[in-house]
Amino acid sequence: MTPISQDVAQLIDGRRLRGDASRRVVLESAADLASVEGLDGLSIGRLAAAARVSKSNVATLFGSKERLQLATIDAAVQRFRETVLIPARVEPRGIRRIVALLDAWIAYSRDRVFPGGCFFAAVAADLDAKPGPVHDAVARAYDDWDSYVTVAVGYAIDQGELVPETDAAQLAFEFMALLDASNTRSVMTGSKEPYGLARRALVSRLIAAGADPAVVRPLAEVDDGA
Amino acid sequence: MTPISQDVAQLIDGRRLRGDASRRVVLESAADLASVEGLDGLSIGRLAAAARVSKSNVATLFGSKERLQLATIDAAVQRFRETVLIPARVEPRGIRRIVALLDAWIAYSRDRVFPGGCFFAAVAADLDAKPGPVHDAVARAYDDWDSYVTVAVGYAIDQGELVPETDAAQLAFEFMALLDASNTRSVMTGSKEPYGLARRALVSRLIAAGADPAVVRPLAEVDDGA
Repeated sequence: MTPISQDVAQLIDGRRLRGDASRRVVLESAADLASVEGLDGLSIGRLAAAARVSKSNVATLFGSKERLQLATIDAAVQRFRETVLIPARVEPRGIRRIVALLDAWIAYSRDRVFPGGCFFAAVAADLDAKPGPVHDAVARAYDDWDSYVTVAVGYAIDQGELVPETDAAQLAFEFMALLDASNTRSVMTGSKEPYGLARRALVSRLIAAGADPAVVRPLAEVDDGA
Repeated sequence: MTPISQDVAQLIDGRRLRGDASRRVVLESAADLASVEGLDGLSIGRLAAAARVSKSNVATLFGSKERLQLATIDAAVQRFRETVLIPARVEPRGIRRIVALLDAWIAYSRDRVFPGGCFFAAVAADLDAKPGPVHDAVARAYDDWDSYVTVAVGYAIDQGELVPETDAAQLAFEFMALLDASNTRSVMTGSKEPYGLARRALVSRLIAAGADPAVVRPLAEVDDGA
């Protein structure tokens, strides 16, 4: 243990802080860029240009392209949590939380929280046939979201808000299918109409599973600006 | 009009035939490759290596990367028609045709008719945020399939096999969402289980719209080999 002076400690802290700040800035750019061009197009040079930092700076921060890709996925997961999961927590567990989650997801895609639409959809097709740690990180993000929705549906069943025969994993699959389709179609056509199609399907599905129409119908009444 | 001898005419025909045959071979390779790596990765050099023909041969056949990409999309549309649309025509228009279409689509994805799963899903995410003729060709292919399913649902409504309140475009959107989700999830995880989730959802949705359970239930009873 070498004792270091207060001044030197402060200097090191300051450097680390600046390093963390540039890391964050670069990763936010990287996630935006990958949502449009895919994770494969995420070279250190391309990113340095987009984030307006030097190539050597990006190289120092991340080392390899693969480490950069993995850190970008982490940053995207964080942004997804802050935009979709955390805001929905103001609603109590059960059907209200589910409605809040579905609505927040549609807003996340519709408002282009990532410029290329849902980050995970954008990078999944790129990677799904190529094995490796980057593929696994994207698959894990999908899986985590799937489990999150399944657990949320489970609470609604346990609380008697959905009929007991409801298969939580099946319903979660259907919700994600409708959300993903609205994102893909909207990004492809530039229209907001697919969100209305998804909203109507989600509401019918919830009502068919026993949800209180008064609680779930507002989800279909939001105007996404088609 | 320059008169040409029988021999010369036969020679030209033979050359055109060989040109068409190599064109077809190269395009089949191109569609396979793009289903895994995306249309962006479809360089003339990369394709020449995959199809085992010379670069100059591929360049002579297609000229530019964009023309190659457009021809590849055409070839993929053709293969999709032959695998999904044409076989379903053995069933009469209406609910039986719809069940045959949905079953053929699942087999098309499950059997990896394109090695990367559904060709259009694989290339859509790559292109959806990038304007141009290649984007438009993929969007048109989606749109054509959407219209095809919507018309098929319309026949079932007109024949009284689905309740008259059924919204054909809405139902087509839901079918495509479930099919696409099963493809994405299966390609990402390597599991065949997502096809079972899609089958069950499709059957419930059809029954909820008034379809005869005896006609649609077999769709959920196929074992995809999970």
